[in-house]
Amino acid sequence: MRPGASPFRFSADRQSTMHKLVLIRHGQSQWNLDNRFSGWADVDLTAQGVAEAREAGALLKEAGYRFDVAHTSVLKRAVRTLWGVQESLDQMWIPVVTDWRLNERHYGALTGLNKAETAAKYGEDQVKIWRRSYDMPPPALERADNEALSDPRYAGLDPKLIPDTECLKDTVARVLPYWHEVLAPAIRSGQRVLVVAHGNSMRALVKYLDGISDDEIVEVNIPNGIPLVYEFDDELRPVRHEYLGDADAIAAKMAAVANQGKAK
Amino acid sequence: MRPGASPFRFSADRQSTMHKLVLIRHGQSQWNLDNRFSGWADVDLTAQGVAEAREAGALLKEAGYRFDVAHTSVLKRAVRTLWGVQESLDQMWIPVVTDWRLNERHYGALTGLNKAETAAKYGEDQVKIWRRSYDMPPPALERADNEALSDPRYAGLDPKLIPDTECLKDTVARVLPYWHEVLAPAIRSGQRVLVVAHGNSMRALVKYLDGISDDEIVEVNIPNGIPLVYEFDDELRPVRHEYLGDADAIAAKMAAVANQGKAK
Repeated sequence: MRPGASPFRFSADRQSTMHKLVLIRHGQSQWNLDNRFSGWADVDLTAQGVAEAREAGALLKEAGYRFDVAHTSVLKRAVRTLWGVQESLDQMWIPVVTDWRLNERHYGALTGLNKAETAAKYGEDQVKIWRRSYDMPPPALERADNEALSDPRYAGLDPKLIPDTECLKDTVARVLPYWHEVLAPAIRSGQRVLVVAHGNSMRALVKYLDGISDDEIVEVNIPNGIPLVYEFDDELRPVRHEYLGDADAIAAKMAAVANQGKAK
Repeated sequence: MRPGASPFRFSADRQSTMHKLVLIRHGQSQWNLDNRFSGWADVDLTAQGVAEAREAGALLKEAGYRFDVAHTSVLKRAVRTLWGVQESLDQMWIPVVTDWRLNERHYGALTGLNKAETAAKYGEDQVKIWRRSYDMPPPALERADNEALSDPRYAGLDPKLIPDTECLKDTVARVLPYWHEVLAPAIRSGQRVLVVAHGNSMRALVKYLDGISDDEIVEVNIPNGIPLVYEFDDELRPVRHEYLGDADAIAAKMAAVANQGKAK
């Protein structure tokens, strides 16, 4: 036995494996590339986005990660990212749960608009408020213009749950029940859980997990396609988290996300 | 109202929609192309197989089919076929259930062997018995050589359930519980169910649904990548079934499957 190694090493390792969660924001989408607000619009990945997904899976595989279940949103940029990760992991066979509560924040009437053009028109400060403030939603869609109401993927939902716009606080209000009712019990039961989600559904979860204040969350940017690993204690309090991969590349991606709302 | 149309036409249509099932055998795999016995070997699709999957999805979309849930095996040729179908249907968001009971028949010690070479060595009659007889399994793998026992996708299973070989009767014995416990209740509850499976797990199900005898099932061949639509009455007895698509192309594909066991 190695010096310092506990005779219970196997079960201790197993325990720590049981209390991890891996989150991944989808890879680059066509509207990430075009710098447009996506929200609930069902935009697909670019070729780079697919490559990022496969790379994320390869990083996870290399680091020894395997999963018992994957959860993702009902938006194809997240599902296709998950597929790429599953391919690289050689885990196309795991069960996949899709749920609207992991969707991107609904961007209201900004959906489809170019972020830089919107900043040029309304000012960078206003766009930063719309993009990042905790409780100021973007202008709402007219109810009659809300395509989600006739979209079969939301047909099983009480229409009252379908938003016309969301601030991050609204997104938190739907993501946290998914954490408490679905994800946390799965992690607690020993399942190795992978979640592929979106910039703001991840910010909602990260805000809760790390106890980030309403003010501080404004400065938190989630890079596309980089695995974010959380480790929890037995009460599912986060002990640490880290992004997998090259630190400089990750920092560059975060800065790029932060700069999307600049007018030029 | 149309002459002869029932005042209950809407609900009658809805009822019939509720009692359908669509089955698809995966598209061409690398070992279909190489004419090798696949069984539980996790062989991927060829580019043609991916194209067949997308085409099957396009046929279904054109015919108005949409699904609430998809079930498939834990083998990637089936999962990737499902992905192609989902892409064409624009239904990447539906839940996907994977289960080993939908796997291809386990081919025992024949797994990986070329069908024509095996026929040249053992005779076409023997190969037809191994391929198509109801209750004569191919030679079994040595237990120690059975890689499924250490494969994580079967880790949750009682090892006694993991076969070293299977005849179709053995496959029926694991597919039918999945029908009775999972698929039939889902269909009965009104879910629109898609199943992507394999030549022999589909033959097992078709044998049961259509009451095909042990002798007659020998001549039943399932083409790759063609949607097979079943309609059921209220007791889930099949009223009719049909393959979607061009009849001549389907017949040619069935003949090709039947001829795989020929020595030349």
